[in-house]
Amino acid sequence: MPEIHATRRRALRERLHTAELDALLLTDLLNIRYLTGFTGSNAALLVHSDGDERTVFCTDGRYTAQAEAEVPDLRKIIERPSALALVREADRQLARGALGFESQHVSVEEHASFVDVAESVTLRRAPELVERLREVKDDAEIEDLREACAIADRALADLLESGGLRPGRTEREVARDLENRMAEHGSEEPAFRTIVATGAHSAIPHHRPTDAVLETGDFVKLDFGAVVNGYHSDMTRTIVLGQPAQWQRELYELVAAAQEAGTQAARPGREVAAVDAAARSVIAEAGYGEQFSHGLGHGVGLDVHEAPRLAQTGVGTLSACMAVTVEPGVYLAGRGGVRIEDTLVVREGTPEILTLSTKELVVA
Amino acid sequence: MPEIHATRRRALRERLHTAELDALLLTDLLNIRYLTGFTGSNAALLVHSDGDERTVFCTDGRYTAQAEAEVPDLRKIIERPSALALVREADRQLARGALGFESQHVSVEEHASFVDVAESVTLRRAPELVERLREVKDDAEIEDLREACAIADRALADLLESGGLRPGRTEREVARDLENRMAEHGSEEPAFRTIVATGAHSAIPHHRPTDAVLETGDFVKLDFGAVVNGYHSDMTRTIVLGQPAQWQRELYELVAAAQEAGTQAARPGREVAAVDAAARSVIAEAGYGEQFSHGLGHGVGLDVHEAPRLAQTGVGTLSACMAVTVEPGVYLAGRGGVRIEDTLVVREGTPEILTLSTKELVVA
Repeated sequence: MPEIHATRRRALRERLHTAELDALLLTDLLNIRYLTGFTGSNAALLVHSDGDERTVFCTDGRYTAQAEAEVPDLRKIIERPSALALVREADRQLARGALGFESQHVSVEEHASFVDVAESVTLRRAPELVERLREVKDDAEIEDLREACAIADRALADLLESGGLRPGRTEREVARDLENRMAEHGSEEPAFRTIVATGAHSAIPHHRPTDAVLETGDFVKLDFGAVVNGYHSDMTRTIVLGQPAQWQRELYELVAAAQEAGTQAARPGREVAAVDAAARSVIAEAGYGEQFSHGLGHGVGLDVHEAPRLAQTGVGTLSACMAVTVEPGVYLAGRGGVRIEDTLVVREGTPEILTLSTKELVVA
Repeated sequence: MPEIHATRRRALRERLHTAELDALLLTDLLNIRYLTGFTGSNAALLVHSDGDERTVFCTDGRYTAQAEAEVPDLRKIIERPSALALVREADRQLARGALGFESQHVSVEEHASFVDVAESVTLRRAPELVERLREVKDDAEIEDLREACAIADRALADLLESGGLRPGRTEREVARDLENRMAEHGSEEPAFRTIVATGAHSAIPHHRPTDAVLETGDFVKLDFGAVVNGYHSDMTRTIVLGQPAQWQRELYELVAAAQEAGTQAARPGREVAAVDAAARSVIAEAGYGEQFSHGLGHGVGLDVHEAPRLAQTGVGTLSACMAVTVEPGVYLAGRGGVRIEDTLVVREGTPEILTLSTKELVVA
């Protein structure tokens, strides 16, 4: 799909004009994948403000063939360290021009090495130019996200139908089962380390699966996702093994209400902090504000956590076609916790929810 | 094991004295894990040169309970962004002192935010202090590496004994099979994205598994590893499906000879570039120098790729108890390639090889 990548590079060149940069050096691999389609583990990219014919892609000898196949439309240099090779290239091409670099990714040491070889060009901090573009998804990206979410839905349905969520299994076994089912349905890899947290472990927001055994009466929190063409899904469901106790029903209903409030608030033009507040206020009014110890959600795409950040301290507003998670949680240390999370696409009116597994309390 | 972590922090304090730093701000999560045992996804650590009682650990609200459990021995601050919180802490404690930061990990933007809040303390670049410590493994680390390597060996043996490597299966199926077998034997997660590359794909050094079907006569390159207590194993074996052709035997024997030469050269005091050369010269003399397109190996531990780097451009010498890979490869585009890789521990005399699967040409 070289056309899509050329379109994205054109959008980036407009940003370079606004930022008064003659060129931008890209070193973040996800940003490079977004702009070129390259999926290897080492690359750099130089995009000029004045036309795509000057764009240069650089990788090393391990990826010569892969770069030919994935990036047929760009001039290529095979050299390592690749970023430094393109600083030299820019230095030759731009004379006294302004070369932006991804200052939120480039380390202080790497920057020092750039300065060492930049004889005439001026290096300028240019953070998050591509991240801003990536926030708003195009149709091809949304299709990949939709498929990744559908795979996660199918894997959860398979797990429940097969009786795979039952007392006696370990967290690790359930996590592996979910990951295998996602792979069978076409996921390239798990979107992140699958969380399976049973009983008191469900009160640990980012618990990692252990050999702890699922027991009747437990909350089991499942947080997992699939990957399709590099695009991630992210979904959490919390399930009860056997008859739920009264406190479990109440806690679940509270989090579900907050999740619904956050979802309804996720509309174009809304401040991200206001979306967080819409869900958080539901939980705070019930007296559990302190037990909701993280932000409401995050953008999702080529990275499982990307801009925008839906949080109390988040900055900016939502736009149509942003893909974000809405994932409030309440965690009662030593007892258990509930988190309910969807991946959704912001649309005019109510958002399009991509993760479609039921949010009714499931009793397994 | 708080004692191990205190011992490591003591070794780091000696480095701070040498570097004339009053304190070091740590932001790299693997370095923090090495020094504290913390395994969460957000943390910062402040180590003072003058005594461990002043060490401060910082994370956010998601990890309050986990930090209590994993880092019982240190004073803790719960705040986000955690690195910035500790720059403020250092600024209050150190007056006009010198505060080092991990300049190979801290981005230019993050550094600018440090400068904004550092009113009296002087920020100083302090790259790779902990990485240097991590190069030489202690007994507990070697034990974890040994177990991670043994798990990979068992998984490969299972795969072969069960007939899991046979014509008709896809690369993806074989990769999943290997990963499941490692998990069954106790691996926490795959050490990296498992490589299964069949036929012409074996000529792509870092191929990702596809739906390509294994066929009789193919080279199948398997590069995979397990994780135990955060420590990674890394092993590559190249297997032939059915009777090998003459060119396959010859290519295999060449790479095996280079791998043996590299292994024999991996001794204390040896320059890393000389170790690379020991293996590379075997391949170059056979006329395939251009087809060995990557370095000979790398350190392995809490990260699957860490210092030292065994490459033509690598700098430094090996020491006893460094854990490294030795992994020469020759890749014939369109035909197939061979890589043979072990994880080993540098010892006086010949190294201790941790990955024990046979390096005779296996015919499956």
